[in-house]
Amino acid sequence: MAKRLGRRTISLDRPVYLSSHAAVVGQKEGEGPLQGTFDTVSNDTHFGEKTWELAEASMQRMAIDTAVRKSGLQISDLDLLLAGDLLNQCIGSSLASVTTNIPFVGLYGACSTMAEGLAVGSCFVDGGTAQTLCAAASSHYCAAERQYRFPLAYGGQRTPTAQWTATAAGAVVLRTQPSHIRVTHVTFGQMVDLDVTDANNMGAAMAPAAYDTLSHLFADTHTKPADYDRILTGDLARVGSGLLRELFQRDGIDLGQSYDDCGVLLYDTEQDVHAGGSGCGCSAAVLCGDILRRMEQGALRHVIFAGTGALMSPTSVQQGQGIAGICHAVVLEGV
Amino acid sequence: MAKRLGRRTISLDRPVYLSSHAAVVGQKEGEGPLQGTFDTVSNDTHFGEKTWELAEASMQRMAIDTAVRKSGLQISDLDLLLAGDLLNQCIGSSLASVTTNIPFVGLYGACSTMAEGLAVGSCFVDGGTAQTLCAAASSHYCAAERQYRFPLAYGGQRTPTAQWTATAAGAVVLRTQPSHIRVTHVTFGQMVDLDVTDANNMGAAMAPAAYDTLSHLFADTHTKPADYDRILTGDLARVGSGLLRELFQRDGIDLGQSYDDCGVLLYDTEQDVHAGGSGCGCSAAVLCGDILRRMEQGALRHVIFAGTGALMSPTSVQQGQGIAGICHAVVLEGV
Repeated sequence: MAKRLGRRTISLDRPVYLSSHAAVVGQKEGEGPLQGTFDTVSNDTHFGEKTWELAEASMQRMAIDTAVRKSGLQISDLDLLLAGDLLNQCIGSSLASVTTNIPFVGLYGACSTMAEGLAVGSCFVDGGTAQTLCAAASSHYCAAERQYRFPLAYGGQRTPTAQWTATAAGAVVLRTQPSHIRVTHVTFGQMVDLDVTDANNMGAAMAPAAYDTLSHLFADTHTKPADYDRILTGDLARVGSGLLRELFQRDGIDLGQSYDDCGVLLYDTEQDVHAGGSGCGCSAAVLCGDILRRMEQGALRHVIFAGTGALMSPTSVQQGQGIAGICHAVVLEGV
Repeated sequence: MAKRLGRRTISLDRPVYLSSHAAVVGQKEGEGPLQGTFDTVSNDTHFGEKTWELAEASMQRMAIDTAVRKSGLQISDLDLLLAGDLLNQCIGSSLASVTTNIPFVGLYGACSTMAEGLAVGSCFVDGGTAQTLCAAASSHYCAAERQYRFPLAYGGQRTPTAQWTATAAGAVVLRTQPSHIRVTHVTFGQMVDLDVTDANNMGAAMAPAAYDTLSHLFADTHTKPADYDRILTGDLARVGSGLLRELFQRDGIDLGQSYDDCGVLLYDTEQDVHAGGSGCGCSAAVLCGDILRRMEQGALRHVIFAGTGALMSPTSVQQGQGIAGICHAVVLEGV
């Protein structure tokens, strides 16, 4: 049974293990600095499908299937699927899992969805709601761009603060059975809106939320950045992660060498992604590719995964509403 | 700690109480057969706001504030807010709670969202993730229609099987402290897609999912329809609820007098809503208005609330994808 620690953090007392993980990405992501850490790199942006929406669904399903298989399980062994994405009405996730015949809980946390799924899923396994579940998230550049910004064929110019929506998906299997990685703490985030209204500067909109959640997490667990091998936000990218460092510096806290951001890690600066990567799939694939592999290998033992999301819609931005950020965090421990 | 019962159902062993509830609706809903059961009826469809999206947010926030106040609490006493709606990127719920400073978990379950929130929230309270939380859902006719179908000014014709998106919101507070209503069981639903592609016949798309979830719930708990004072789906409306009765009749099971549907209950047939009501707010307001009041008064003691949703987007429908239905159910017991 979970215990509340401090103001915000939930300490999982029943061991919740991250049993397996999988990341599936597109060609551009596969050519970046994290190449070799993904389970599948598809050179076909359509993933064999007719539409971008089905392509995203196919990619997310591939991540789920791979993660489930790596746990030595079949889809039918899952008690629950938790998933979300950026598409209107989260259709990427529905289409991905519609044929699974597994209870499905749809989440919406924008780019924080992988962390939200891990957080909700960990609480479920801790509380006995599920013994075995899968949490997944995805985004697809071609499906997202035309929905949020411009049709791809229009060739719209991007601002320097803009981020590149990753074509990527990640999935994890959480279980009560011991494995090499344990989820020990969960901190659900609140929305923080400092009235950023520029949809091409998501990093600035999300950094204050990441600061809020991480501050609570450190205070509640009586830890400091240096206690972790890796503190990973996703995906503030270059602009937002710089701001986050600044916000902590004002408190006299140096995030140090262990801090990095999934939106910075996924692409090389030469890949023309401006401030860096974004999209639910960005942090999902960096976590489920590189980070969890290194935890399994023992290279990382104590990790904070803090997914960040910008809660806006094209309609709300056109109406001049501020873009609220949110950040959900989980603490992972190598066993 | 929750226990799994049978194949799908979760039995909550730590008492989870529904401490208070509130329903806020628009004028049309306030003039229907359930008038007098809502906390607030607004004759201003804009709820004092400039846009339909902000109107929906204002209405959802009003439901949350009212429910929290009726529990004798303040917003700051909540450990968690769970909410969702129909708008792209669930912006109605983000805008509703952005100033609460409370951890926020965004859900997407289309019209099943109120049930999804109750189900996830109950598991969280049972498992110790939260002591006190609020789950909310909303929909607004004017915001939804232009997003899903046509601009209102276009005056598009509706088919007889079409449903009317309710302008309505509901919120409940769940706690560990005893009250008059307990949540005893939760059954998360799977997606069921029988290839209905008509976005004006959601009832037909959702009925098979309701049948699937309720069948599992009856089997897992060894109960039958006659064991409940009220079995409430929401919102299959006239077409879908008729189909649900038919599906159970094939198994020799009569849903009987205790079965009804929120989409049927919310409006009079004279209100020109064709097959009935729909939208996250429809089942939310019927539950949080009429049903929970009657449970508190002791008139209903054993209730199944089975929220149904159609997982589609205008894009997926235009692309010819089938509309998957989903149904999450909770069992409520008068104490």
